Amino acid sequence: MVVVLKPKTPNDEIEKIKRKLEDKSMTVSIIPGKDYDLLNISGETSNAKTEEITSNACVEKVIETQQGYKLASRLLHSDNTLIKVGNKVIGGDELTIIAGPCSVESKEQIIGIAKEVKNCGAGFLRGGAFKPRTSPYSFQGMRFEGLELLKMAREETGLPIVSEIMSTSMVNRFAEDVDIIQVGARNMQNFELLKELGKIDKPVLLKRGLSSTIEELLMSAEYIMSGGNSSVILCERGIRTFETYTRNTLDLSAIPAIKRQSHLPIIVDPSHATGLWWMVEPLAKAAIAVGADGIMVEVHNNPKLAKCDGQQSIKPEGFKTLMDSIAKVAGATRKMI
Amino acid sequence: MVVVLKPKTPNDEIEKIKRKLEDKSMTVSIIPGKDYDLLNISGETSNAKTEEITSNACVEKVIETQQGYKLASRLLHSDNTLIKVGNKVIGGDELTIIAGPCSVESKEQIIGIAKEVKNCGAGFLRGGAFKPRTSPYSFQGMRFEGLELLKMAREETGLPIVSEIMSTSMVNRFAEDVDIIQVGARNMQNFELLKELGKIDKPVLLKRGLSSTIEELLMSAEYIMSGGNSSVILCERGIRTFETYTRNTLDLSAIPAIKRQSHLPIIVDPSHATGLWWMVEPLAKAAIAVGADGIMVEVHNNPKLAKCDGQQSIKPEGFKTLMDSIAKVAGATRKMI
Amino acid sequence: MVVVLKPKTPNDEIEKIKRKLEDKSMTVSIIPGKDYDLLNISGETSNAKTEEITSNACVEKVIETQQGYKLASRLLHSDNTLIKVGNKVIGGDELTIIAGPCSVESKEQIIGIAKEVKNCGAGFLRGGAFKPRTSPYSFQGMRFEGLELLKMAREETGLPIVSEIMSTSMVNRFAEDVDIIQVGARNMQNFELLKELGKIDKPVLLKRGLSSTIEELLMSAEYIMSGGNSSVILCERGIRTFETYTRNTLDLSAIPAIKRQSHLPIIVDPSHATGLWWMVEPLAKAAIAVGADGIMVEVHNNPKLAKCDGQQSIKPEGFKTLMDSIAKVAGATRKMI
Amino acid sequence: MVVVLKPKTPNDEIEKIKRKLEDKSMTVSIIPGKDYDLLNISGETSNAKTEEITSNACVEKVIETQQGYKLASRLLHSDNTLIKVGNKVIGGDELTIIAGPCSVESKEQIIGIAKEVKNCGAGFLRGGAFKPRTSPYSFQGMRFEGLELLKMAREETGLPIVSEIMSTSMVNRFAEDVDIIQVGARNMQNFELLKELGKIDKPVLLKRGLSSTIEELLMSAEYIMSGGNSSVILCERGIRTFETYTRNTLDLSAIPAIKRQSHLPIIVDPSHATGLWWMVEPLAKAAIAVGADGIMVEVHNNPKLAKCDGQQSIKPEGFKTLMDSIAKVAGATRKMI
Repeated sequence: MVVVLKPKTPNDEIEKIKRKLEDKSMTVSIIPGKDYDLLNISGETSNAKTEEITSNACVEKVIETQQGYKLASRLLHSDNTLIKVGNKVIGGDELTIIAGPCSVESKEQIIGIAKEVKNCGAGFLRGGAFKPRTSPYSFQGMRFEGLELLKMAREETGLPIVSEIMSTSMVNRFAEDVDIIQVGARNMQNFELLKELGKIDKPVLLKRGLSSTIEELLMSAEYIMSGGNSSVILCERGIRTFETYTRNTLDLSAIPAIKRQSHLPIIVDPSHATGLWWMVEPLAKAAIAVGADGIMVEVHNNPKLAKCDGQQSIKPEGFKTLMDSIAKVAGATRKMI
Repeated sequence: MVVVLKPKTPNDEIEKIKRKLEDKSMTVSIIPGKDYDLLNISGETSNAKTEEITSNACVEKVIETQQGYKLASRLLHSDNTLIKVGNKVIGGDELTIIAGPCSVESKEQIIGIAKEVKNCGAGFLRGGAFKPRTSPYSFQGMRFEGLELLKMAREETGLPIVSEIMSTSMVNRFAEDVDIIQVGARNMQNFELLKELGKIDKPVLLKRGLSSTIEELLMSAEYIMSGGNSSVILCERGIRTFETYTRNTLDLSAIPAIKRQSHLPIIVDPSHATGLWWMVEPLAKAAIAVGADGIMVEVHNNPKLAKCDGQQSIKPEGFKTLMDSIAKVAGATRKMI
Repeated sequence: MVVVLKPKTPNDEIEKIKRKLEDKSMTVSIIPGKDYDLLNISGETSNAKTEEITSNACVEKVIETQQGYKLASRLLHSDNTLIKVGNKVIGGDELTIIAGPCSVESKEQIIGIAKEVKNCGAGFLRGGAFKPRTSPYSFQGMRFEGLELLKMAREETGLPIVSEIMSTSMVNRFAEDVDIIQVGARNMQNFELLKELGKIDKPVLLKRGLSSTIEELLMSAEYIMSGGNSSVILCERGIRTFETYTRNTLDLSAIPAIKRQSHLPIIVDPSHATGLWWMVEPLAKAAIAVGADGIMVEVHNNPKLAKCDGQQSIKPEGFKTLMDSIAKVAGATRKMI
Repeated sequence: MVVVLKPKTPNDEIEKIKRKLEDKSMTVSIIPGKDYDLLNISGETSNAKTEEITSNACVEKVIETQQGYKLASRLLHSDNTLIKVGNKVIGGDELTIIAGPCSVESKEQIIGIAKEVKNCGAGFLRGGAFKPRTSPYSFQGMRFEGLELLKMAREETGLPIVSEIMSTSMVNRFAEDVDIIQVGARNMQNFELLKELGKIDKPVLLKRGLSSTIEELLMSAEYIMSGGNSSVILCERGIRTFETYTRNTLDLSAIPAIKRQSHLPIIVDPSHATGLWWMVEPLAKAAIAVGADGIMVEVHNNPKLAKCDGQQSIKPEGFKTLMDSIAKVAGATRKMI
């Protein structure tokens, strides 16, 4: 937040305003200008009542700083953030490959797929236990039973597990059970959930909302980070546009944009973005070429019988081919799998 | 859900499939066709495992019925739903007018505005206690203290109060404190929250998500209704488009669309849709003309000092003018205030 | 275009720059400022080579003026523009009602419909002779033969005729034959066509492009006006969004926006916006309530047999009902039909 | 167009309908079915008056064939189309690289840039002579003088030239002067222009409209092809969405979609899509990785002084780096430059 002072405000008046804000736990620095001075305010700016500040006769106006995010910004943190999960590092030279079924359906299914994707080179297992479905009559996931099955798959394969959370009431359980907590596109601005996730010490995979701008995604990351949890992985998964050929429109421009604006790692989910299994491989290659830190892909051993999103899942053999072809692109761009 | 049977499936086979589904609490009716028969399945269709059904050799395919909503559909409920709140009825001949500040800021503010909007003819007081803000550094609302101030304003004026909920953990408190629980655009697909709201006996004002289709809005209503709470009021508040002149694009076509598809009442929020105070009156008139059951308008006694959304708030005197002009439009369309 | 001069630029240097620009047919006025002066440049600004201007050591930067339109702007023309066509005035107290079939199909059809809409109170007859169809295999219109039939319908009924132009090569013929030349949404940024229409003396009905902003619509109007033709009528007809229930999303906020920014009349086409005949009446009422100067509606005597867009056409009896109901709304907002 | 006949229509009746359609220059084939027969109609289907056909008592209904395009469809032309221009082939194993300034500004500028991009490996020179600008006051291009300068640059370097056409009246001149005629995004549905381009023998580079679907792009290609010109190159250049970080949102999913639906070559223009020079290289790499046949890139020797779109232009040295890095990606995906 920046306070614009009126021209020729006397120094003692400036000091008075500064102290008043500091009393409310804000940090204030004076930026002298040619014609008028500014106050740069950080810290507990939510304590700042705009009307109180502007009621001072020496204040011209109060403006929000250009970016609503600070901790997520590269301005204050020029190096890429590296997030360690088990023996993997997300955001570094090695690509992060998260694969698995849309939803956990049975012990055999999840363990079977986990073994297959591990053999192909995946570093993480994904699987939905709680499913955000548009209709209340669609399959809602195996819920906590699904989490247990994921844990078994982790034990069998050693793959860290990624699963989606849907409510503040599940935060403790997820923090204990999974290795990366996924926040889905529909909850990207579920701010109470983000605040709770800011209080724990567990990486969060934050998916971009269907109609959220790049800046809003970074603001939602800031909600988590400002609570104390700096392990946020972003995920581009398509935005809603007028085009109906694909389910959503994958916005790969978001990758260089986020790399410029933020130090956080960002991966791409081509499965949800397109909703079409045969588009997953070419878009995965494009994601690596454009500079993403990894991909998240739906793999199902029997897509036709999948309880949800079968149309966008590739089979293990397709995943093998995909891994080979992205490895080549990765090589061409100095990354490795 | 509809099961398409293969041509020439023998009757005893059809009966076998039917019984199997009924054993899982589904209701099944046979629709005989010229070339092949169909099974119409209702009830606990979430118990239906698609793979199990399609594994039967006589099943051609399983298709989701066209609408993901049933309870919200006018097909099964041709009369308009009327929702009684205090001595007001929402969805009938009288327009529902909800007015008040974006956020509760102080006792004086909320009681002052409550009196003003009541004098102008508003039937309900709105005021945000919990604020969903894009940036974690923006004012987050007075939270539970704000709810207390709203209750005082209700006591002073008799106006029922409307306020936004943001998390499952607040459901009990809101059910007790407010008269209509608002679910904001960003939480329209916070399905865990919707499920909890389905369990209580309190009207819910469900705002359309920024990038949600009309069908998705009705599906979210269905989440609440399928839990047992049939008092859902819908609210059109603008969708996200490429146009930047207004904050969002108010989709007034949604009103006749929803009136055709559903029996639920629907109101319009021109303040959030446009983000511009001078657009509120003309769009409020258009909303009434197009057939909305009411409007929700932001009124602030001092928009310049408002802690949020001041730019879109009208003053009490502007609200008076607005009420006069919508009364005329209402008269022209056989509604009254 | 505004040139920002560096602080303390000597007056003789300013005069030198000014003369240099004036030599290239630009009009230059000096706007003195506290710290530095500005040059406001109008006229043939396309002659201004930015690099040449900025190469002068006294020039800080060159900025495009905030609005790309001047003649269309209310800033320079505060009164509403009134456009006379026959004995009708567009943009005044009387609503402009344009009605007729999507396309001219036969002599009987167009004359029959013309009589019907006239009896119901329409002031203008519309009918497409040239049809911009997405597929080359769809009916392309009766072309010049259609124009002849429209002229017969005008002779029979006295209604001025409105028809869509599709190419620069048709400008002379349209200028002679029709009373208002319509530019369709797909040609809103066919700048060569706009330039040609700027050279003639005939009102132009300019429809907003499917993905054009309000500002871009006004810039396209400016193309026509800057050529010398100031009789431009704007038309909101829906923008392309993610919603698929309606063909496009009618943006009624555009009406007050354009009324604020421009002095040009603006009408609304609810038929093309929604693509659904049963939505035409409620949205026509909303259009009048929000302040539009009129509406353009598709009316067909036999929508099921219409050669295009039958689904969005209303029948003459429906048009009668529509006229009655918008008359009431018009009365409530001090307009008349 | 397909005519669905009623069950048990006698053969002689079918023949009668068939002959009637053939008399209107349509080609009709009978597709016998189990329960009823179909008529597949091609050729001059615009002569088919739907009402006349459906008025026959034996006709159930008339449906448009699923795709509005036939000649552009891969269904009827499974091999990729290869377009020869000079000694280059577009659509084959070699990537097509088109580079040059947004607009031709002077002889020195265009020849200088042409030499630079040729040295870096570009196969074609682009340069705008006619510029479609949103505002009438922006630089409109050097027009025919610009075409002359492009021809000089071609003579100097041997590079074939690509330039944008804006009106039907320019078709003959462009057909003579340039090697590939570009149709810009704003004219993608300027159907009269497309029809004229269908009559000549010169490759057309057709850019996707800002709010056009993939299907609409193919339909516009069909307009050109159905006129007799089968040399159409498609170009994805970003669609309009709510995101404002980039000028448009590059839709790379369109590449595999079009490769599946059509045999036509498709290239990507990352400069116009993003409007940001530093995004051009990563998105060019992604375009190659996803399977595009080439790229079109804006290169300017002095972007700061460019008369338009300087912000999105890279310098020759940046273009050299880009060429090196896409060569690597091309190698990883079995393409070459």
